[in-house]
Amino acid sequence: MTDAEARERAAAMLAEAGIALTPAERERIEVADFGLGRLEETGLQLVVYVNTERVCAKELVLFPGQTCPEHRHPPFAGTPGKEETFRCRRGTVHLHVDGQDEVVLHPGEQCTIPPDTLHWFRAGSDGAIISEFSTQSRDELDVFTDPRITR
Amino acid sequence: MTDAEARERAAAMLAEAGIALTPAERERIEVADFGLGRLEETGLQLVVYVNTERVCAKELVLFPGQTCPEHRHPPFAGTPGKEETFRCRRGTVHLHVDGQDEVVLHPGEQCTIPPDTLHWFRAGSDGAIISEFSTQSRDELDVFTDPRITR
Repeated sequence: MTDAEARERAAAMLAEAGIALTPAERERIEVADFGLGRLEETGLQLVVYVNTERVCAKELVLFPGQTCPEHRHPPFAGTPGKEETFRCRRGTVHLHVDGQDEVVLHPGEQCTIPPDTLHWFRAGSDGAIISEFSTQSRDELDVFTDPRITR
Repeated sequence: MTDAEARERAAAMLAEAGIALTPAERERIEVADFGLGRLEETGLQLVVYVNTERVCAKELVLFPGQTCPEHRHPPFAGTPGKEETFRCRRGTVHLHVDGQDEVVLHPGEQCTIPPDTLHWFRAGSDGAIISEFSTQSRDELDVFTDPRITR
């Protein structure tokens, strides 16, 4: 799947969920394969709504069975690192947070991940849409467990 | 309209927009008439998803023509005050921010309101649903222009 195809598929999933995007937002849906080159297994599609010094909000789109690999958001610039709340909007999300049992999120269910805490997640067989509410996002600072990953 | 009726109407608008709530969230939809006793004109319905020391996310539901009256979020506890991004999900929102022209938000459009800045907003004739992404929410600190208002 090319990035353009992934972008189109994510846009279709968002539209089907009734989540309105501007044309400009649809154009700039971010496709992340984490440098592994097997997007459908390990990857993520994102729409960043806002990302200021204080607040960030995104929609995350996962295709069926797609995994966002284990990572953490380390402290930076005097902050404890990014704090995230994942709210499942569509599909199911299997979320793994370091030191906790797997959590399965269905639409309307959510989980807050403390800063600097390892986590990874995978969509169920229908894919998933997740709203992420967080402090500032600095993706380039993320620390992934798999050393082959680049962001 | 009673609070229970307002809660039910807001829940129906959210359901129609495809926004999933848990049963517990549906039960605790907040109905604010700002102490004025004329909810359908001046009021707001809210679902608070998360409100930590760092991040807050809510859905705001406005009935047709309903207004959230002018207020600002002052500095507190060493912070500059609450920073808010309003993202329109359904309907239209007429947003007034101090020192700026009126902004009309349609689904998929958004606006960020700096801390400690007067603002008010009104839904168009179909009502509106707004996702609010912000820093910590401390409603009791809000400063309203109309001295009759209590929150």
